[in-house]
Amino acid sequence: MSKRTHYCGEVNEELIDSNVILEGWVAKRRDLGGLIFIDVRDREGIVQVVVGNDYPEALEIADSLRSEYVVRVKGEVKPRKDVNKDLKTGKIEVIAQQIECLNTSKTPPFYITDDADVDDNIRLKYRYLDIRRPKLINNLMLRSKTAKVIRDYLDENGFLEIETPILAKSTPEGARDYLVPSRVNSGSFYALPQSPQILKQLLMVGGADRYYQIARCFRDEDLRADRQPEFTQVDIEMSFPQMNSFMELMEGMVKDIFNKVKKVSIDTPFRKIEYREAMNKYGSDKPDLRFDMEIIDLTNIVKASEFKVFSQAAKTGSVRAVAAPAAHYSRKEIDRLTEFVKKYKAKGLAWISIKEEGIKSPIAKFLTEEEINGIIKEAGAKCGDTIFIVADTDKVVLQSLGNLRLQLAKELGIIDESKLEFAWVVNFPLFEYDEEEKRYVAAHHPFTQPNEEDIKMLTESPGKVRAQAYDLILNGVEIAGGSIRIHNQEIQSKIFDAISLSKDEAKEKFGFLLDALQYGAPPHGGIAFGFDRLVMLLAATDSIREVIAFPKTTSATDLMTEAPAGVSQSQLDELKLKTK
Amino acid sequence: MSKRTHYCGEVNEELIDSNVILEGWVAKRRDLGGLIFIDVRDREGIVQVVVGNDYPEALEIADSLRSEYVVRVKGEVKPRKDVNKDLKTGKIEVIAQQIECLNTSKTPPFYITDDADVDDNIRLKYRYLDIRRPKLINNLMLRSKTAKVIRDYLDENGFLEIETPILAKSTPEGARDYLVPSRVNSGSFYALPQSPQILKQLLMVGGADRYYQIARCFRDEDLRADRQPEFTQVDIEMSFPQMNSFMELMEGMVKDIFNKVKKVSIDTPFRKIEYREAMNKYGSDKPDLRFDMEIIDLTNIVKASEFKVFSQAAKTGSVRAVAAPAAHYSRKEIDRLTEFVKKYKAKGLAWISIKEEGIKSPIAKFLTEEEINGIIKEAGAKCGDTIFIVADTDKVVLQSLGNLRLQLAKELGIIDESKLEFAWVVNFPLFEYDEEEKRYVAAHHPFTQPNEEDIKMLTESPGKVRAQAYDLILNGVEIAGGSIRIHNQEIQSKIFDAISLSKDEAKEKFGFLLDALQYGAPPHGGIAFGFDRLVMLLAATDSIREVIAFPKTTSATDLMTEAPAGVSQSQLDELKLKTK
Repeated sequence: MSKRTHYCGEVNEELIDSNVILEGWVAKRRDLGGLIFIDVRDREGIVQVVVGNDYPEALEIADSLRSEYVVRVKGEVKPRKDVNKDLKTGKIEVIAQQIECLNTSKTPPFYITDDADVDDNIRLKYRYLDIRRPKLINNLMLRSKTAKVIRDYLDENGFLEIETPILAKSTPEGARDYLVPSRVNSGSFYALPQSPQILKQLLMVGGADRYYQIARCFRDEDLRADRQPEFTQVDIEMSFPQMNSFMELMEGMVKDIFNKVKKVSIDTPFRKIEYREAMNKYGSDKPDLRFDMEIIDLTNIVKASEFKVFSQAAKTGSVRAVAAPAAHYSRKEIDRLTEFVKKYKAKGLAWISIKEEGIKSPIAKFLTEEEINGIIKEAGAKCGDTIFIVADTDKVVLQSLGNLRLQLAKELGIIDESKLEFAWVVNFPLFEYDEEEKRYVAAHHPFTQPNEEDIKMLTESPGKVRAQAYDLILNGVEIAGGSIRIHNQEIQSKIFDAISLSKDEAKEKFGFLLDALQYGAPPHGGIAFGFDRLVMLLAATDSIREVIAFPKTTSATDLMTEAPAGVSQSQLDELKLKTK
Repeated sequence: MSKRTHYCGEVNEELIDSNVILEGWVAKRRDLGGLIFIDVRDREGIVQVVVGNDYPEALEIADSLRSEYVVRVKGEVKPRKDVNKDLKTGKIEVIAQQIECLNTSKTPPFYITDDADVDDNIRLKYRYLDIRRPKLINNLMLRSKTAKVIRDYLDENGFLEIETPILAKSTPEGARDYLVPSRVNSGSFYALPQSPQILKQLLMVGGADRYYQIARCFRDEDLRADRQPEFTQVDIEMSFPQMNSFMELMEGMVKDIFNKVKKVSIDTPFRKIEYREAMNKYGSDKPDLRFDMEIIDLTNIVKASEFKVFSQAAKTGSVRAVAAPAAHYSRKEIDRLTEFVKKYKAKGLAWISIKEEGIKSPIAKFLTEEEINGIIKEAGAKCGDTIFIVADTDKVVLQSLGNLRLQLAKELGIIDESKLEFAWVVNFPLFEYDEEEKRYVAAHHPFTQPNEEDIKMLTESPGKVRAQAYDLILNGVEIAGGSIRIHNQEIQSKIFDAISLSKDEAKEKFGFLLDALQYGAPPHGGIAFGFDRLVMLLAATDSIREVIAFPKTTSATDLMTEAPAGVSQSQLDELKLKTK
């Protein structure tokens, strides 16, 4: 028999009366009195093969087949009587003339279907079987397609794909490094890169002009469900950028991705939201814009209130609220929501329910009628709504109400899942104050260019300096973050001063970057997309493991290969290492 | 001024009388009495900018410019009087109207030109300056282009780009692994992959059908000039392959690369050479086919000779020769060549020089006239030629004559450098005998499928079993190697037996692969191209460092970032590691 003519999923009505050769796996086999039906599966889909006694040799082989055997089938495409609407190939079937069994299979530890309920750890241990599931192989195909669209777009726009080292130097970007002991220089270590940030900047100094890399990055953090010790980012940098046209260029890429991968047309330009506005309205720098329910500031209304909880908070922080539309909350539910905001350090959750018979609220007795009416008016609340109020420091108020807003919207089902709400968040603060370390730290990273008009405040009021940084968000998820970088060595030094990095430390950690900035560094800027997360959104899955071929568990182990593993004494001796 | 309209290298005669805006570096500045000439450089080339006193502001700025300052220039394109034929843009110049200095530069530690003679270590320390050299940035552009052509070709042919982990399990493929200590599972280590070999096979078991990855691989070996601790390979695997059509598919890719990257058309199909033939004719499994000068077997002619050196070797090994055409060798030169073959363990180098006045040879006196004439006839040697003979074990004879053949051809200048001689080397032995370990080892890797007709010899005569393996060579360099893999668990076990890998070892090292082969593994095979080496050939450079953005030295250090480096005690403590 010669080789495959079509993938299983490609066999359709147009091929009726033609011969096809298929190669794939036995997904299902049923023996119906002299006729054997085999569902043959490959990465493109499943097709029904029928074997009857016109071809006794084929029938004999078909009889011996079991689940997950590997077969080659030659047959003729015919219309199917019992059309299966759930199947792409459901209108046809293949009448087998010849079957070859290319390999047998033990009974697999789980059924290879999308709906099988299988323990995650079993799936990971037998990842090579799990990948056969239509959903998982489709995700990998979608990932491959997305990468291709990105590469095509960047190539057309003059970006060079340049590889940067994996055996790199420890970069102090916040997270913990994975280390690689050096054998030749014993006692020394490479670090796996957390991102190619500095190297891509050096490529700009080197005149590469436009760079990209779909780059592997590494962080030795305690993992959460949506994190992996290694992850992939679409890393982009260009020289002589103008911030707005660079953002446009990136919008074009995102448009291309959704268009070519998902056949969805999206509108550009994306809206831009000031960081401050995002925080005030949505309590988040990555707001979900698929619904309104904005946070309302009540501080002015209650600042003179007799109710000390409010008037006191109005002095040192703020009093803000969200109004849940047309929803009844029982006392029990309100207790639950109070517990919810406590996770974000709110001390309590006040509420006012507006009913036909009047308002209902445990704090009504502490407020004047004018205050209550003011709150209702400011919140734009209507009959049936419930207003939830938090009074605390700005940070606690915004964080708790921002999360409460998301939670209420989910519970109320008011999020339109079909929407794609992109936005750029801009004018971030350059620094954040680290309460523990009692110093300013870089909000993005210490190479971000301050806004021109804010440079003069670098020394006196670093907290007020805004950054030429931009995050791209989609439906409340940050999919990319970038900035214009510093290309001037003096400004770079001032930034290091502002984050209390001594000259010596700066030199030790970034000496080569500081050197490079003195030798004709061009203006430059860039962005990095979280590729895994982007693919998750495209694949509409909420688990990062579903878009990675060989993911690790939350304890950073690979259950299939059993990595990490012990090594031999001689390997350690060569590295001059001892384990404690 | 608005943004760039053209790269420097793009400005040509078609733009005469148009305005352009350029951004780049001052490569050279000359002040010629009132006129300032500036060569502006970017990644695409260099263009001459002329500044005169029609634009006094521009002139003032031009006057302050120095080498490697970053500038933006607006001006009008005009024909150039003194045409510079060495320059792509040599027929025009740009008359500047406006200049902005975007950044200054200290005097760089070396001139940024292709011909500057600079110490390699200085270059590596200031790699961001070295990358500005036209040759280096061109190599990186060529590398990017090559990757793009490969990706396009593989994508068109249904190959999915799938990423495999970098934090992997130690694979016993011969070389030393780089290890990464695990913090969460202290005492355990990840290994950086030497290749994605097993994982790509598991992707085939998983039904991915066609996979590729331009993958980073790692080997902690003592480095030679043409090695790097991390390197890149174009890693390809497909299911249900037919060896010949897979090789054709790869030929199509290579054709595409040379066509699109180098505008060179190459003929396919490539010739196929049996491993045995390559060894016998050229003394190498990667013969340079740009010239003949084949090795001739004299064993039969001299096996009964009175000259014991020959007759003895004929019994236990062989006597073979190469004939250097039309060349005179002095005694001193012959001494040098004798030293040369000694590097390959030959005990000596016999020679016969054919001159008009008769033959000249130190061994003539030990040979009969019949033997001498037989040798000359077999070698096809003509008047003026010199025949070089080695008598030893087959291995030593072939290795020393293979290398002598290359050396003589280089010295004689008979290699046509314009030729591209591709060939597949096939029918490799599956195993090699390791004299030190006194056992057979896998010649390629232990997952290579034996030739069907040789499987029966696996137990009795493993040394005779040939592999379904293929190496692609170009001008004497191996650019790719691949094979059909074993998809049957029993054969895989037999191979492990043949290389004396115990069941326990096999299970520990490859247990998951052996498991996977039991669950419906499809027939599969693939190949890996050494990407760095391929780009070297395309760039016509003989240093791997010239095609890698940030290479390491032969002691595996990065002179720019100073990696590897010491780490803090707390980092070691977290990993529960001690350095000795």
